[in-house]
Amino acid sequence: MKRFLLAAICCILYNTHLLAQLPALDKVEPMNWWVGMANPKLQLVVHGNNIASRQVQLAYPGVKLAAVHKVENSNYLFLDLVISPSAKAGTFAIKFTAKGAQPLVYNYKLNTRDRSANRVQGVTIKDLIYLIMPDRFSNGDPNNDVVKGMRETGLHRDSMFSRHGGDIQGVMNHLDYLKDLGVTTVWFTPEIENDEPQASYHGYAVTDYYKIDPRFGTNELYKQYVEKCHSMGLKVIKDIVHNHVGTECYLIQDMPMKSWVHQWPKFTNSNYHDMVVMDPHASANDKKIMLDGWFDRRMADLNENNPYVQNYLTQNHIWWVEYAGIDGLRLDTYPYNDGPYMSQWAKDIRAEFPNLSIYGETLVWSAADQAFFTEGNKLNQGLDTHLPGVTDGVVKDAIYEALNGKDGWTDGASRLYAVLAQDFLYKDPTKNVVFLDNHDMSRVFSVVNEDYTKYKSAFALLLTTRGIPQMYYGDEILMKNFSNPDGLVREDFPGGWPGDKNNKFTAGGRNKKENDAFNYIKKLANYRKNTTALQTGKLLQYIPQKGVYVYFRYDALKTVMVVYNSNEKEQEMETAYFAEGLNGARKGKNVITDEAVDIAKLIIPAKTTLIFELMPNGIH
Amino acid sequence: MKRFLLAAICCILYNTHLLAQLPALDKVEPMNWWVGMANPKLQLVVHGNNIASRQVQLAYPGVKLAAVHKVENSNYLFLDLVISPSAKAGTFAIKFTAKGAQPLVYNYKLNTRDRSANRVQGVTIKDLIYLIMPDRFSNGDPNNDVVKGMRETGLHRDSMFSRHGGDIQGVMNHLDYLKDLGVTTVWFTPEIENDEPQASYHGYAVTDYYKIDPRFGTNELYKQYVEKCHSMGLKVIKDIVHNHVGTECYLIQDMPMKSWVHQWPKFTNSNYHDMVVMDPHASANDKKIMLDGWFDRRMADLNENNPYVQNYLTQNHIWWVEYAGIDGLRLDTYPYNDGPYMSQWAKDIRAEFPNLSIYGETLVWSAADQAFFTEGNKLNQGLDTHLPGVTDGVVKDAIYEALNGKDGWTDGASRLYAVLAQDFLYKDPTKNVVFLDNHDMSRVFSVVNEDYTKYKSAFALLLTTRGIPQMYYGDEILMKNFSNPDGLVREDFPGGWPGDKNNKFTAGGRNKKENDAFNYIKKLANYRKNTTALQTGKLLQYIPQKGVYVYFRYDALKTVMVVYNSNEKEQEMETAYFAEGLNGARKGKNVITDEAVDIAKLIIPAKTTLIFELMPNGIH
Repeated sequence: MKRFLLAAICCILYNTHLLAQLPALDKVEPMNWWVGMANPKLQLVVHGNNIASRQVQLAYPGVKLAAVHKVENSNYLFLDLVISPSAKAGTFAIKFTAKGAQPLVYNYKLNTRDRSANRVQGVTIKDLIYLIMPDRFSNGDPNNDVVKGMRETGLHRDSMFSRHGGDIQGVMNHLDYLKDLGVTTVWFTPEIENDEPQASYHGYAVTDYYKIDPRFGTNELYKQYVEKCHSMGLKVIKDIVHNHVGTECYLIQDMPMKSWVHQWPKFTNSNYHDMVVMDPHASANDKKIMLDGWFDRRMADLNENNPYVQNYLTQNHIWWVEYAGIDGLRLDTYPYNDGPYMSQWAKDIRAEFPNLSIYGETLVWSAADQAFFTEGNKLNQGLDTHLPGVTDGVVKDAIYEALNGKDGWTDGASRLYAVLAQDFLYKDPTKNVVFLDNHDMSRVFSVVNEDYTKYKSAFALLLTTRGIPQMYYGDEILMKNFSNPDGLVREDFPGGWPGDKNNKFTAGGRNKKENDAFNYIKKLANYRKNTTALQTGKLLQYIPQKGVYVYFRYDALKTVMVVYNSNEKEQEMETAYFAEGLNGARKGKNVITDEAVDIAKLIIPAKTTLIFELMPNGIH
Repeated sequence: MKRFLLAAICCILYNTHLLAQLPALDKVEPMNWWVGMANPKLQLVVHGNNIASRQVQLAYPGVKLAAVHKVENSNYLFLDLVISPSAKAGTFAIKFTAKGAQPLVYNYKLNTRDRSANRVQGVTIKDLIYLIMPDRFSNGDPNNDVVKGMRETGLHRDSMFSRHGGDIQGVMNHLDYLKDLGVTTVWFTPEIENDEPQASYHGYAVTDYYKIDPRFGTNELYKQYVEKCHSMGLKVIKDIVHNHVGTECYLIQDMPMKSWVHQWPKFTNSNYHDMVVMDPHASANDKKIMLDGWFDRRMADLNENNPYVQNYLTQNHIWWVEYAGIDGLRLDTYPYNDGPYMSQWAKDIRAEFPNLSIYGETLVWSAADQAFFTEGNKLNQGLDTHLPGVTDGVVKDAIYEALNGKDGWTDGASRLYAVLAQDFLYKDPTKNVVFLDNHDMSRVFSVVNEDYTKYKSAFALLLTTRGIPQMYYGDEILMKNFSNPDGLVREDFPGGWPGDKNNKFTAGGRNKKENDAFNYIKKLANYRKNTTALQTGKLLQYIPQKGVYVYFRYDALKTVMVVYNSNEKEQEMETAYFAEGLNGARKGKNVITDEAVDIAKLIIPAKTTLIFELMPNGIH
């Protein structure tokens, strides 16, 4: 109740209950660092009972204690270190002393950076991202299902909002399955500690920035997981949240200063209207509530204008990438963040990891609104976000409009044409992540009303259009449901738990249609994986004619022709008009069936997408 | 039939019939010019039977004949003159000589530019534009109803596609009416000669670039009309067409060269898909058909890459502005034109007339697509169009969505918010022309299903939002109809013809509701005319709450609050949230009723827009 009040009212600095138990030296974060970083500066957060009453000393070659900051709450010290390029890896003592008290010592370790080639590779247009909610994919370690001392206890697989027991080991056990499907990159919804009393499974209410949730595994296991992925040729994306923090985090329970989070006289939700961020006519009130309002009662809005918060977040993200060798970061709720800080953050993290991929979650109205948040666009009031790509919800909506809508000037298939035509808004639209669904959205099979032909077209379009494709776990076995409530699209992967009736990780556990769907995506994903034309190739698209949308992806090696018939009935089409894309080809190999067909005239069944690899003339 | 073939096939250079009648010296265009132009160059088109066989001579201080160009068709010469800044106004002979033939002489006149203050004033955000189709407003001169020798003869007021007899004199007779209504600027659909056999009334198929259509009046009358407008404090916009030309124009009947227009093996319509112009993935085929396809069988697509065509068009537009003192140009079918030429055109014409206003007709999908065509945006592949504004069809659609749609995240009233939020796309969105309808669109009263409350809200929003408002003749007396077919929205203004049953130019001729509508717009237009806050004032808008959209227009002098209730029922609303806009005001004057009301809490009837001028506190 106390905690609830704190979250709701959020103008109390100390949690007296916590204070009574607080050790004299509770935490030093980041708990270690590395030599050879681009940025020589490091700001340590020290938390401990009345720690501010102590003096700080350290002595290590190449490391300077540049400043010690006391803040409102005497349980904190912020130490500014400067680590010179000449500093060597090693350990040094940081001493906290006070008259008449035992000195406290923290042995701080500076490690050597691991520059191995298969770490921090970056996720690119050559990849296919597979999104997993770790609680819902597979339970590989029943020992961590219930962790004593954590606030949410017990497994309730029949409750959509409770924990189900999935974990990192469960995913590790099924990497072969993903590899077989043609996936190249795995993205987890956040796997760091969410020690919240309810709905802790989703991961977006962090309570310990430096710790994998014990119910998912350990930091060491996470590192092993990344290494295993890398050894199998898979990449890893970590999902990070700049905007908000779980109210059970020690930084909220015992805030360093009132301005750590945005304070409101009474609980105030964000209005979630991202448009006010770009609106030159927006009111200060709407803007403040959008940016500084809380995402939820249990997700406090961090004050990203506070330089201590900035340092804390940025260093945490750098720590994880360097610690585990992660390939990409997905930035949650991107538009809710403070723009100038996020721009600096992107510069800072890219300075440390030039190959790291980053992309922001944007769920906005239009391509223009999306482009506003991307690197090098000229729209953002002079601010360059340095964010290469965003989640392309506008292309997603357009794919569904193409599948479910009736063709018109900019409706139906023509919407998809029109949205891609707006790529003029981006510096590089191929950095965007294209997708059909995720943990917050209705599943593709349900959105197309369980029409299997449309489902295949959805994946055909996803895997052949521009951008980095992302799919959601279980879509390949026709998992379905609508996103209201959320839980329904977060069901367990069948076979992920010991004793599950069917094991859909295996062909034998899937029914005929599920196998067909699995094999369709497998075929297409593996074809894409081996076809640069579908990755880095250019896009050439035609205005849909009679509801048929035709485009080509091509490079010096190959040309792939994609033909989507949005009509409710079969369509016959001469292809002479597409001479620029065909470049003289008269035959194409259907990449799903491997059949060679004459492409001068095509018959396209209703709602179907045909994909042809053009064949050089003379081959029969 | 011959002509039809020429228009349709368009690969014949000569019209033999015309050739036989062609005088040895038919035309010199521009027929006069001015000294003191920014650009010293002038290219004369000389048309005459076998004129290319002659030598050209001229002698005049400060005027140099820099080049004489012969082209494919020997009936043409193009003369490049250079007029030095020192040249004085006067007349000189241009002699066309050939051995054994009588010399031909054209006396070329260079005039002094008229720099009077009330000429070429520019149309700005302070104005309200009123669009008139001259054939359909008022018949002021029955003598010009039928002009002998022209291809379309006879008046048929019962036929929507025939001529009705309206003319410039008719408009001149009713300038008092417009002035009374609060209009400040008159825009005619094109009034230059359209000597086409059918549907010549609309004016978009020019047949003589230098001549007012005789059925509308004369060049001299047009000039008098502009002068009369200026003397009454009204401004004039001329509607010009770069993209196409009527097939009966001498330049098409007897083309200077095949490349004067875009030639096709068989008649090819534009696909009208403006998106291909901006689409970085567009096919060459789609693009060519969009830009080079013909607008209509009788509207040949000019080749704007041909430098002779470029000179011809640019000089013609400069000629009209200088000749008549026009204040603004509306550029028809802007996206269909050649981008680089239009950019150069805008630079050239603005160099001659720094105060002239220009805006392009764009009827595109989204604000991003609109912004692509505007000056100083960063989206147009490095090309600056130098076009300050466009017709803002996206705001129009959003106003109708606000009026007719159901409020949602970006639907209903929220659509209007969202579209204006996208003003970040423009260098200066206030240069856009906002409107509810025009000669190509269903009339506002019909679009709102003849709901008079919505109709008033439509005008309230139009006249208080950002941009230069434009209305369509007769909207103020509730003229109605849908745009399919076009003619239905191009009905005659009742009372514009001698003998009309009702004269709705007068209060006595209008019924009660028509008078109410007229007075509503009059009140609002005149209020806007005298309120800088609604002109150059800033816009401050709020996310619609419960379907109520609130915004403010303000400057140092005044603040105007606009409250639109999109709901189907009355809405009560506390206004404390809008403190930033209210700036402490507690009372407002309803600008329609002049009542002072307490604005702490408002009751807004369904679909109604309330407009308040905020009152300084202390006034009761």
